[in-house]
This record gives sequence, C-alpha cells and structure tokens, in this order.
Amino acid sequence: MAVVVTNTVRTPLELVDQLGQYGVATIHEAQGRTGLLAARLRPIYRPVRVAGNALTCEVAPGDNWSIHVAVEQAQPGDLLVVTPTSPCDDGYFGELLATSVRAHGVRGLVIDAGVRDVAELTAMAFPVWSKVICAQGTVKETPGNVQVPIVCAGAYVRPGDVIVADDDGVVVVAHDDVERVIAASQAREENEEGKRARLAAGELGLDIYSMREKLRERGLRYEESSPR
Amino acid sequence: MAVVVTNTVRTPLELVDQLGQYGVATIHEAQGRTGLLAARLRPIYRPVRVAGNALTCEVAPGDNWSIHVAVEQAQPGDLLVVTPTSPCDDGYFGELLATSVRAHGVRGLVIDAGVRDVAELTAMAFPVWSKVICAQGTVKETPGNVQVPIVCAGAYVRPGDVIVADDDGVVVVAHDDVERVIAASQAREENEEGKRARLAAGELGLDIYSMREKLRERGLRYEESSPR
Amino acid sequence: MAVVVTNTVRTPLELVDQLGQYGVATIHEAQGRTGLLAARLRPIYRPVRVAGNALTCEVAPGDNWSIHVAVEQAQPGDLLVVTPTSPCDDGYFGELLATSVRAHGVRGLVIDAGVRDVAELTAMAFPVWSKVICAQGTVKETPGNVQVPIVCAGAYVRPGDVIVADDDGVVVVAHDDVERVIAASQAREENEEGKRARLAAGELGLDIYSMREKLRERGLRYEESSPR
Amino acid sequence: MAVVVTNTVRTPLELVDQLGQYGVATIHEAQGRTGLLAARLRPIYRPVRVAGNALTCEVAPGDNWSIHVAVEQAQPGDLLVVTPTSPCDDGYFGELLATSVRAHGVRGLVIDAGVRDVAELTAMAFPVWSKVICAQGTVKETPGNVQVPIVCAGAYVRPGDVIVADDDGVVVVAHDDVERVIAASQAREENEEGKRARLAAGELGLDIYSMREKLRERGLRYEESSPR
Amino acid sequence: MAVVVTNTVRTPLELVDQLGQYGVATIHEAQGRTGLLAARLRPIYRPVRVAGNALTCEVAPGDNWSIHVAVEQAQPGDLLVVTPTSPCDDGYFGELLATSVRAHGVRGLVIDAGVRDVAELTAMAFPVWSKVICAQGTVKETPGNVQVPIVCAGAYVRPGDVIVADDDGVVVVAHDDVERVIAASQAREENEEGKRARLAAGELGLDIYSMREKLRERGLRYEESSPR
Amino acid sequence: MAVVVTNTVRTPLELVDQLGQYGVATIHEAQGRTGLLAARLRPIYRPVRVAGNALTCEVAPGDNWSIHVAVEQAQPGDLLVVTPTSPCDDGYFGELLATSVRAHGVRGLVIDAGVRDVAELTAMAFPVWSKVICAQGTVKETPGNVQVPIVCAGAYVRPGDVIVADDDGVVVVAHDDVERVIAASQAREENEEGKRARLAAGELGLDIYSMREKLRERGLRYEESSPR
Repeated sequence: MAVVVTNTVRTPLELVDQLGQYGVATIHEAQGRTGLLAARLRPIYRPVRVAGNALTCEVAPGDNWSIHVAVEQAQPGDLLVVTPTSPCDDGYFGELLATSVRAHGVRGLVIDAGVRDVAELTAMAFPVWSKVICAQGTVKETPGNVQVPIVCAGAYVRPGDVIVADDDGVVVVAHDDVERVIAASQAREENEEGKRARLAAGELGLDIYSMREKLRERGLRYEESSPR
Repeated sequence: MAVVVTNTVRTPLELVDQLGQYGVATIHEAQGRTGLLAARLRPIYRPVRVAGNALTCEVAPGDNWSIHVAVEQAQPGDLLVVTPTSPCDDGYFGELLATSVRAHGVRGLVIDAGVRDVAELTAMAFPVWSKVICAQGTVKETPGNVQVPIVCAGAYVRPGDVIVADDDGVVVVAHDDVERVIAASQAREENEEGKRARLAAGELGLDIYSMREKLRERGLRYEESSPR
Repeated sequence: MAVVVTNTVRTPLELVDQLGQYGVATIHEAQGRTGLLAARLRPIYRPVRVAGNALTCEVAPGDNWSIHVAVEQAQPGDLLVVTPTSPCDDGYFGELLATSVRAHGVRGLVIDAGVRDVAELTAMAFPVWSKVICAQGTVKETPGNVQVPIVCAGAYVRPGDVIVADDDGVVVVAHDDVERVIAASQAREENEEGKRARLAAGELGLDIYSMREKLRERGLRYEESSPR
Repeated sequence: MAVVVTNTVRTPLELVDQLGQYGVATIHEAQGRTGLLAARLRPIYRPVRVAGNALTCEVAPGDNWSIHVAVEQAQPGDLLVVTPTSPCDDGYFGELLATSVRAHGVRGLVIDAGVRDVAELTAMAFPVWSKVICAQGTVKETPGNVQVPIVCAGAYVRPGDVIVADDDGVVVVAHDDVERVIAASQAREENEEGKRARLAAGELGLDIYSMREKLRERGLRYEESSPR
Repeated sequence: MAVVVTNTVRTPLELVDQLGQYGVATIHEAQGRTGLLAARLRPIYRPVRVAGNALTCEVAPGDNWSIHVAVEQAQPGDLLVVTPTSPCDDGYFGELLATSVRAHGVRGLVIDAGVRDVAELTAMAFPVWSKVICAQGTVKETPGNVQVPIVCAGAYVRPGDVIVADDDGVVVVAHDDVERVIAASQAREENEEGKRARLAAGELGLDIYSMREKLRERGLRYEESSPR
Repeated sequence: MAVVVTNTVRTPLELVDQLGQYGVATIHEAQGRTGLLAARLRPIYRPVRVAGNALTCEVAPGDNWSIHVAVEQAQPGDLLVVTPTSPCDDGYFGELLATSVRAHGVRGLVIDAGVRDVAELTAMAFPVWSKVICAQGTVKETPGNVQVPIVCAGAYVRPGDVIVADDDGVVVVAHDDVERVIAASQAREENEEGKRARLAAGELGLDIYSMREKLRERGLRYEESSPR
C-alpha cells in the first residue's frame, strides 16, 4: 500500500537557482534558523553546492525499489531526497542510478542512509549527501511512497520544497517561503559584507555589535591572572 | 598463549590481481552480498583501491606487539588485516610500521581500530582503512595471534582469503571462492555496461527491469496531487 | 557570573614554533603519552599543521557569545580552544569569526562542537579541528568563561599551554613542559630516523628491538598451518 | 519570534483512552508501520504505558523556557512532546516541572533530549521517555514555539495527534486516523489471539502462514549438515 | 539462495547446563578471554542467566522471515542467535515468536538487532539480549540462512556451540571446547573463592598476587603529596 | 613511569555526608552548573545515591593494574574514580575488586569504562557508575597514576574532591568548595520547597517567576489556531 503522488507542485527553477546562490548557513539563518537536516548527512566530495526541487522518496530498510519508481517522476532541476522508514546504512544508490536520474535532470541526492560507488559518483561530479558510505546492496521487494511529505534526517520535507546543500550540510526551504528567504539571504549577505571588512581591520565584535553593556548586565567580569 | 601460524595458504597473486580489477560493491554483489566489513572502516585518502592476501593479526587493546610479529610472516602481495580483541581506538600503526611492512611486500592495512601518521602514510601512498584516526600510542606487552582466522569489523577472515578495498569500503572473498567471484564480477560488469547506456539515454529502470507489474501486485498505486 | 582572565601567561612564540615542527604523534609520545584530545576532533581540511598558545573559551550550548569576548584577549600566535559546557553540535564559528580572530593573530581553532562555513574557512586556509560540521546557528545570551583552565575533548588545557594540531589530531603541552618536550621530540625523531632506514631495508622490528626472547617468555609460539 | 498557538484541536479523551489500551507495537502495525519515534527514546522506568494528546513544544539547545510556556496550554489528558531545535542532552525537565504539568492534567513527557530527577519522577510515577538522563541544567533566554507541528525523534507530530508510549517506545497517531487505528488495532489483537494459541501448541508459523511454497520460490533450500 | 542446514551437531544438554552454572565473565576468562559478543547486546530484564545450544539464523535488514524458518529446526535446549546481514534496529522478534519458539524448547534469544513486546517477554520470563528495543515491524520477503556459521555482534558462532548469557553479556563456547571450559571455569571459581575471603578480610591484592616487585620494575614510584 | 601520590588531602566525612544529602542535580545547580561528569556514566542499579572522597586512578586500555595499586591508598569514605588513558569498554572491575575495596571502606566506583559481575555487585549493593557493562577481562602489565588529578568523563577531578552520584549521574565538587556548595544546596532545596507547593496547586511558572513580560520582549506571541 504505497503511493506515488503525481503532478506535485514545483518551485520555478529561476527561484531555485537564485536561492542556490547562497550557502546553507546563510539560508538557515535567513529563514529563522529552521530547516536544517541533521549534521550526519555529509557530502561525498568537497567543495560542492547544489539546489533543487525536492523529489521525495521513502525506502524500506535494505530495499531501494522506490528509488527506481521515483526516477519516472523526476523533472529537470529536481534533487532526490530519500529517507528510510527505519534506520539503515545500506548502499541504496550507486553509479547506475546516478546515470539514470541524471538523464532525467536530477541534480543530486540527499539520503539519510548509505551510498556506494562513491569514486564513480565523484568522477561524474554527481553530488551526494549521505549518512554513510557503504557497499552493501539492497533488494527490490517492498515499494515505498514517492512524492509524499517525509521526515528526512529530522527535517520535514514536502515535494517541491527547495533543498540547498553544500559543504556545511543540507537545508530545506518550504515552497511558499522561497522568495522571502531569497530576499532575507541577500539582505544577510549584504549586512555581512560590511561587517567582514571591519572585522578584517581588527575591529572587535564586542564593539561592532555593542555587546559590552549587555555582557556586564549578564554578569561577565574581568580579573587579572594570578601567578600560576 | 598466543600463536603464529606459519606456512598458511595464499591465493596466487595472479588471481588476487584479477579480482582487484573490480570494485568492492561489484565483488560484494558477485559473491551473493556477503563478505563486507563494517562501514566504519574508511580509507585515509581517496581515491584508492588495493587487493591482497589477508595477513591476519589480533592485537590486545592498546598493544600493537603482534603487528611486529606479523611483519615476519608477510609475503609480497599480502594485505595486513588487524582486529583488536576488544574495541580500541588507539593508533596502532604509523609511518615506521608502514615502512617496515612495505619492505616485505605488504600492500596496505585494514584495521578495526586507530591509525596515526596519516599525513605521512598518504604521502607514501600506503593505503589504510581504519575505524578512526588517532595519535594515541600503544605498548608492547601482550602478544596476540597471527595468521589465525579472525573476525574483523564483523566479517570472518582467514589467512589467504583475498581482501579488496576501495573508496566504498572493504570486502573479503574466501580463498576457495576467488575464481568463481572473478567470473561473477566480470559477468556483472558486462551486464551493467549494457544497462548503463540505456539508463543514460533516459530509459527507465521500471521498464528495463520490467518492474511495473510486480509493483502493482505489491500494492503501489498512483494518485494525482491534491492542491497543497 | 562568567569571568575573563586577563594577562595570562603565554609560551614564547619561538618555543611554540619549535614545538610545532613536530607532529602530534611524536609530541604525544615525547611527553609520555599524555595530552591528546579525543579523536573525535578532526581537521576540516588536510594536510594541515599548526601550533599556538591556547586561548581558552567556554561556551553555553547553542551560544557562542564568549567567543566574541575571547577575540579581545587574543594575541598573535594564539590558537583558540573552545569547549561547550554540555555537549553541542551547533556551528559556533564561521567565516566572520575567522576573519575577526585572524586579524588579531589567531592561528586556528580547536572546538569540541560544530563549525560552519567550512568551504570559506578552507579557502582562507584557516585551520579548524572540530567534532562536527554543522550549519546550525547560535545565540548570544549567556556569557562563558574566557582564559580559565578548561577540559576540552577530555584533555585539561590551561591558557598559555601549547596546542599542536595536525592530520592526526590535537595535543596539548603544559606551559612548563614545552622545552622538555621539544628536546624529547627531537630525540625521538632522531631515533626514528635510524630505525626507518633499517626497516626500509627489510630488517625486522623483532630483531631491531630484540623482541624475540620476551615474546617467547610471554607465551608466543609458532606452529605450522594444518591443511585447510 | 516564537509563537504559541492556542485553541488547537484535541482528540476526545474517550478515543485517546481506547487507543491507549493497545501497545505501541500493535498500534504501529495497525496504522501501516508508520508513526514510530526513534528507538533512542526510552522510558525512565518499566513497565509503563500512557496515551495522551500531543502538547508540542520546541526548545532551544540548553534552554527550557518554552516548557514553562507550554504548561499554560495544557489540558487534562495531554502528553507533553518536546524537541530541541538542535541536538542536546541537557536535563530540560525535572521534578518541579513534573509537579507543575501534572497539576494541569498532563499525563507524561516525551522528549528527544535529557531529563533529570529521575528517582523523584519514578517515585511520582510520572512517565517519561527521553534520549538520555542528564543532570545538566538549562537557561531561560530563548522562547520556542508551542503547539506547532514539530519533528520529534524523526516523527512528525501535530498538536492533538495522539501519542501512545510504553516499554517498546513511542508512536504517534494522526488526529484524523485515531478511530481507524483503534479499529485496526482491535482487529489485529483478535487475529493474534488465535495465532497465539496455535503457536503455543507447537504449530509452526511456516504452516499457519503457508510460507513453505513462497520460501521455495524465493530460493530457500535445505541440506544435511556435513560432518564438522 | 538461502540455505537451512539440518541435522547439525548439538552439545549434550547435560554439558550445556553444567556450563550454564558459571557466569559469562568466568567462562570468558576460563577459555582464554575469547568468545564475547559485543557489549551492545543487553538483556531486556535483570537478573537473568541462560545457556543453550546456538540455533543460528541470518536475517535480511527489516525482514524476519528466516526466524520463522528457524523455529522448525529448534530442539529443546536451543538458544536462538540472530544476526542481520547489515546493521538494523528493527523489532524482529516479539511475543508471538517467543510463544512459538518456547513451544519448541528454545530457552531464549540473542539478537544483534531490535526486539519488541519487551513487557510481554519480561512477563513470560523469556530472556532476550538485543542491541536495541524497537517496535518497528519487519517484512517476510527475503529468506536468510539458518544453522550456518555466522558472525553475531563480532563473534563467530556455529550451530551447536554453547551460548551462555547473563547480566554481563553473552559468550560463545565452541562445541569442541565445552568440557575443557567447564573444567577451567570450575577451577577459576575455586581459586576465586579463596581470594575472596582474603580480600574481604582486607588483605591487599598487591600482596596476594605479589605485585609489588613487578610494579617497581615497571616504573611505579610513590611520592608524598605536595601542599595543594 | 607511573606515580602514586600518598597523603593526599581528604574532605572530612562529616562534610562529605552533608553534601551527600543532596541530589546530583541540586548540587550541580548550587555550584553554578559545573562539575557534571558526562551522562554516559550510568548506575548499574537504581535507585542509588552515594558520596565520597575521590580516590583517583588512571588505567591503561585493557589493563586494570593500577586499581589494585589504588586499593592500598583507600580510606573509609573514599569513592574510587577511574579513567582510562584512552577510551576502552573492557570490564576493569568486578566482584573481587569490590570485595577488596569495600574492605577498605570504599563506598563505590565511578569509571569511564566497563564493569562486570553486575549481578553480584547489585546483590552486594556496591554502587557503580560506568560507561558500559562488559565481561571482557583486563591484563596487569602497565601501571598507571594513582591519586593524581585526572579528567574523568569530561570533568577535572582531584584527590579529595567530593563525588556525589545518584540516578541522575555523577558530579564533582572541589575540595575547597564543599562547605559553600552545601550551603547553596540547602538554600536551593528550601527555595524549591515553596515553589513545589505552589506548582502542585496549579499556579503557573510563568507567574511565579514573572516571565510574561520578558517573553513578550523576546518576541513570543500568541495566535489562535487556524482550522486544520
């Protein structure tokens, strides 16, 4: 009793790519420190950055059948997001599946499980964020849901939400928030630009951010070192 | 009461090297999805691939004495496989031991424990798969068994079994199975070659593997997205 | 009720830099196998090595305020050592803070927590050893102690102790021991130099270190392999 | 910018209590093997079982302020479900908060973080499922959302969903599914009742479930043991 | 291509039960500090002790089909030992399977995976050692091997080896070693009996075991505390 | 080159026992949220509480020799605190050592490693907090330091500091702070007593602690639930 939802909404690629200009840390801050996937998801090579529409996929433990099902639902600019229904480290995805999804315009993979053929995937420049690298193969016996809302690595992801992933990890931005987050990311970057120059010149954050008074109120005090 | 077994069987290097042409994922599949060591063993640099005859070695926690004993048993084409008798993260092996075993023809190290001098080992291009990188030194007080059957990272390894290791991890092939697994690996690669071209052309795995009927029987259904 | 201790002792940079010529494994051995920080601290890029005076900093979970406070205490040649008061994976430190501390001469960061902007930090060649890479932001509500003795990743670190960090991990050398450890490290390296040549020539550690008799006494025995 | 949502829907306690007659494993099966929270959540004492309406609460790392906010939203029959915005092991909840929430009819706590005063909580028979037991205190500086949809230990939980928790773990049943899942749980228990008697009499599952033919098709074969 | 091996050897129950008089720590010592399964396997209730003939069973991740197959192979005095072919936390075994295997004389379960219905299993006094407690259900699609040699939690176990498990964990004794290990365990217990009385009377291990000289040789020295 | 420091300072047992009237969470709060050992240390039985003078002991991995050395230094009211020089899960301590240290007045054990014979230790009511329960035995080859300052489970502990341990974990109070912390603990308990009654009567923490205004300033807002 698994379901594939078709004709799901997608975020226009123009917006996806605008959002993809910003790093994961910036976007996470810009949307109010939400949307991060767990830090256990790491890229198989660095540096790397990609943005895409979430193409969601649930898999049974040790069973990658629904990834094959998901390929048919792919559209250019999608980013495959795979979560197992219970924790599993098996290598659900390798070079052949990457070849297949790339042929359908998929830009990369985020998976809260294992991946294999990482030398080949790296040579192909196919970006993957996974929990583990593991050669263990999977079966095709139990279909899973495709293009339904999922929880992946602790984050709630719906089809057509935008995923941005880079060296720092993976963030999801809800479909309806993309424009707002692009604007906020841009504002944050501009704000940081000015700060960066002052900090590089040796000015202290204590002064730039006017922290001294608040620190004193919160009980910070200074004392001379006593002889050791 | 530790033992060193001498004159153990080895797999002919011609076979070892034929097997080493295939990746770990391929070999693991070709021999029926068995023989993988746990995914916690990771290479200290990538990309990398090596194959060799297992030269097995048990070590006490925090004690690398038996590795020194194992060196004397080494033959060209061996790959040192080390397991602690209880879990330990210490750095059992570094540049000096690598220099020593390489002088005896050892091609690399697989260890379910720690390793150190990884910058030097990388510069030497001496391949290592370990559980952790750790500078902690070890003592030489308790001898361990050498060239006996061991369990390393969850896999049963006997002297003269063939180890293949690459970016995806480590696999062991039993001495008696090597020729069979070479043949099966070759068959698998040839089979994949044809699939790869079709997948790259956009053909779906659903069709190539004739999955649609079986998916329907197992309860997969498609439904239109409802308005979000 | 947090405190910043000023005018703490520092180790002269001439000594710091002498010590920094040696690797972490060598220094750890030279000072009697003490002072290693836990192996969970890993560099964000490799190869890398740095040495500096410990500039210590405690942070509340999810709160990096005291890092801003610590910047003001920095002197050229310092290495920032940050520990959370309870375990936390958040990204306490990124490119802006790196820009700031570098402007004050800080050579790198050791943190038993998370770090972000690792692509930018790598591009800046700002070395960081952290427990995790994580984009999660932090607040500025709870000041922590700066330049007090701390426990970081299981090691006791006082301001002005010397930290050396490389591909193998991180070691602390107490302020009063630096000269002794430099001498012992040099002695160790010279000793190893001779050993390396003999080992590379195929001589056995069993003979170089005269281990055979002691191994026999401890019960090691050799036996012929029985037919498999 | 945190929000407390008031007047959220609740599942009638009559239904909650009917559902609570079934164990977590049964309910999880009855609703199609979904809704389990991660197995890292363990009860502080056993045996135990409780069911309640989810009263959801997000907390900042090391900061339990929003739990105090949540108390005001509690209604009899609620079960407090707390998730940190990034992983944290601190002891967010102890005897005083238990006293407070119990006074408002809260039946227990599920928290993907730490808890303390477990001797007192056990003596009070206040049930708690937590990731860890930890005495570390928390601050009150950063408000978090209350009664919003959350992800707790990998499961998506909305206010008014029903939580059932016992020795096996924690499961969430969506508000709209409760009646259906009660019926399915009852059907499952009745079905098991008959099976139990036959199994206890020594009948084989192979026969009761008619597995032999399918096993043969999937390649299972029997062979005599060869002499060991 | 899974296999069930029939007519495997078993250790006479008289010997099994003699061995079962000793605790896991004693047996592990008596057979030379080998045979322990990894400490992650914990009993679901305490205190507990059981001994039995290993009835081995491999399961696919998330698939408990071969446990049903194994029941038919059970004989009185067996202890079921289950290992997944790749790591999995799912709840492979619960009250119904316990009812079934008990009807065939199985004394308990050791599983390097998850178990559920632990309240019921505890009430039945059916002993289980597992990696985790988890309600997650499993499928029946992929048969696994039964009564073949396996690696379970890092130990090599063959059908008919004897398993002893108690509050301290799980140990395997090879079929051929059982009588020797019984004798050695008895000797060890008798030896400890005398030591216990002397230690309880305040005599020091330093003296009973004549450690002082050896400690001095290994560099131990005593010094007065300096004023703190 | 290990050292045993003799004639170390101890805290008078009258003070130790006064401190031991308070729970770990209370003491940790009373001394400013410091001094907790890592939450991975768990008691082998519950409920339990003990207080004692820290008798510190470093052990090599897999080697418990220095615990035997430590026994001679024990005085009534001591609590043995053991830390390995690198992480180790072996069972360093069992019933015989417990018998021995109890004969010298030691009240319990805190160890950042493994312990065995837990059924016997429980029957003896000898309290132990350990990282793991593991039957694996240890050797006696490498002496370690006794009665020196150590880091145990992330906390700095000196001989004669007071350790209090209960169901919530383990806390260390510095020798010089004991009287101050007793007073602060008493004050805290008295303060909580009044709060408890008001909370039990249904009064809200929001009102008792006057949090509403501060929450509003920090951005908390309330909104009606929209139809689901």
